[in-house]
Amino acid sequence: MTQVLDLAKRLLAAPSVTPATGPVFDAMEAMLAPLGFEVTRFRRGDGEPGSPEEAVENLFAIRRGPEGSRHFAFAGHLDVVPPGDGWTSAPFEPEERGELLYGRGAVDMKGSIACMVDAVANVPADAGTISFIITGDEEGPALHGTRALIDFMKAEGHQPDLCLVGEPTSVNRLGDMMKIGRRGSVNIWLEVEGAQGHVAYPHLADNPIPKLVAMLAELDALVLDEGTDWFQPSNLEITEIDTPNRAHNVIPAKAKARISIRFNDCHSGASLSEKIGAIAQKHGGQALPIISGEPFLTPPGEFSDIIASAVKAETGLDPEPSTTGGTSDARFLRAVCPVIEFGLCNATMHKRDEAVAIEDLSTLSRIYAAIAKDALAL
Amino acid sequence: MTQVLDLAKRLLAAPSVTPATGPVFDAMEAMLAPLGFEVTRFRRGDGEPGSPEEAVENLFAIRRGPEGSRHFAFAGHLDVVPPGDGWTSAPFEPEERGELLYGRGAVDMKGSIACMVDAVANVPADAGTISFIITGDEEGPALHGTRALIDFMKAEGHQPDLCLVGEPTSVNRLGDMMKIGRRGSVNIWLEVEGAQGHVAYPHLADNPIPKLVAMLAELDALVLDEGTDWFQPSNLEITEIDTPNRAHNVIPAKAKARISIRFNDCHSGASLSEKIGAIAQKHGGQALPIISGEPFLTPPGEFSDIIASAVKAETGLDPEPSTTGGTSDARFLRAVCPVIEFGLCNATMHKRDEAVAIEDLSTLSRIYAAIAKDALAL
Repeated sequence: MTQVLDLAKRLLAAPSVTPATGPVFDAMEAMLAPLGFEVTRFRRGDGEPGSPEEAVENLFAIRRGPEGSRHFAFAGHLDVVPPGDGWTSAPFEPEERGELLYGRGAVDMKGSIACMVDAVANVPADAGTISFIITGDEEGPALHGTRALIDFMKAEGHQPDLCLVGEPTSVNRLGDMMKIGRRGSVNIWLEVEGAQGHVAYPHLADNPIPKLVAMLAELDALVLDEGTDWFQPSNLEITEIDTPNRAHNVIPAKAKARISIRFNDCHSGASLSEKIGAIAQKHGGQALPIISGEPFLTPPGEFSDIIASAVKAETGLDPEPSTTGGTSDARFLRAVCPVIEFGLCNATMHKRDEAVAIEDLSTLSRIYAAIAKDALAL
Repeated sequence: MTQVLDLAKRLLAAPSVTPATGPVFDAMEAMLAPLGFEVTRFRRGDGEPGSPEEAVENLFAIRRGPEGSRHFAFAGHLDVVPPGDGWTSAPFEPEERGELLYGRGAVDMKGSIACMVDAVANVPADAGTISFIITGDEEGPALHGTRALIDFMKAEGHQPDLCLVGEPTSVNRLGDMMKIGRRGSVNIWLEVEGAQGHVAYPHLADNPIPKLVAMLAELDALVLDEGTDWFQPSNLEITEIDTPNRAHNVIPAKAKARISIRFNDCHSGASLSEKIGAIAQKHGGQALPIISGEPFLTPPGEFSDIIASAVKAETGLDPEPSTTGGTSDARFLRAVCPVIEFGLCNATMHKRDEAVAIEDLSTLSRIYAAIAKDALAL
């Protein structure tokens, strides 16, 4: 068994559904300490189990290079989404079958973290400073995860020059895509108040639904932008309309809906909230936005070039610099330094029988080592 | 105590929330038999209590006039809506306080039925044939009530020439309004199927909500008609929109809504169902109509003149011939003969502390007697 396969299995064997604490971090610390890393672990949150304030563990590890050397950071998460039912083998008992290694987190993203650890074993200590920014709360509310790690790093004076997040960005083959940015995300709750009444006497009532329908029609027709060089057009989806009403003869008093906007760097969460709020008001309603992330972009340049070269050397592929898909903790790390995401194939992430090609683990380990060396040598 | 007040109290003292059976019909039969009426009672429905098929009682009573005489029918219901909480006196223990008699059904419509019984006591038996068409299922599903009575009458060869329904049609003062027609009513369930997906990848999903919103916007803008001489314009209300969706990041698979149309005699339930169905289809959806009643109209003429004269003589008022408001069992009786509705003031109907002015009972009894005599003399 290769070293990286062994590391991956050790991480996969520790159940760590969000919010993760304890054993999976014990395993991680046990891997990093022998490589010369100074490991700090801390918990945040003191809420009831199941609440967004439930305790979560974070780990920051650093191996300092020579005075004045550059600082390269690997970032990721050890928590995983719930396995769900119907697995062929136990989700937290990693199992090799054929060319694949099965287990919850195989690609998202304990497998990538194993590759990072294996990679740094192959980067000389005098090449520069390397750190690990690892949370147990990426798949959950993300309140006390990477944000708390960033606070800790600032307080301790740890300032990476570049950061690579190991999210599973590859689509069909390892190396075909990296993420140089992500769209922002905002959910907006819409509400129109009316006055209840009997359908036979509509003049005595004030039906809020037609106002909500007109508002939603206007929102659905909205063109937010045409996209940018690096981003697809921002997109608004109506995700819920909700005025349950059992009584066939009653005009309801209130009508509600929710929209979700994924937006590029033409906008901010605040600018969109204001725009939607004005449209809601025009139709007699109100809008309550909750911003889950602002967009980020690390424009193609020397960092993406380093990644592309390393990928090309190991796989022959030119990774597409993409900004598609959901959000990740890169939305927080962007405030620290330039961030790019690159990792395993995402075909099985969040699904049952999540699996990684064993060969990909070795390849990604070599890619990560090359990236770290090149980033430190800049 | 006047006779009509005593009759009203006897009916109000028998609890009879829909579907009504037993004691309230015993009381009614005990009033009619001494007046020379041949009373037939029958039950229909054999479902579980609480189901739409729960048993309900009906009563048909007839006092035959001379061979070849005209036949005038009084129609109504002995069932009442649930009393609800917060009554000043017990809802099924009729109580006089000041000038009012309190009890569930005081105006809707045990009070009116007491007036009908009291009235026929004052109509000579040789004036013509008089019948009572009385159900215990008007406020409920109305599956086995007046419809069953009509079937019974057809089978037995009872064919009234005119029918007066005792619904509480008066608004501010007894006599200010009669109903010469009612609008039809149809509820239509609308549904659009899409394909579920993640909001970050809308091209892999098919959001049904914008299609539903466009459909509802078109329906809301629809002008069904401009009204007629006797009817207000038909009205469409969106009464429910329903796509509950807890997941903020998920595009739902299906979107649903419901509309309620109150329509005049420019339309039928079928013609509207077809029209709405075509609009639903145009937007990729489906429509499932449930027609609760077709419109009816008894155009002003000799029947309404008789009622207006009787009302004018007793109250000095000219009753407005109206077609506003909800539906009633007149929607079924219209198939038998011309129908008009006239009864007590509706201010307290379906409310707590339902009450009738004691004076109105005597007045309405005299009005009903005059109407019956004049209708039989036509």
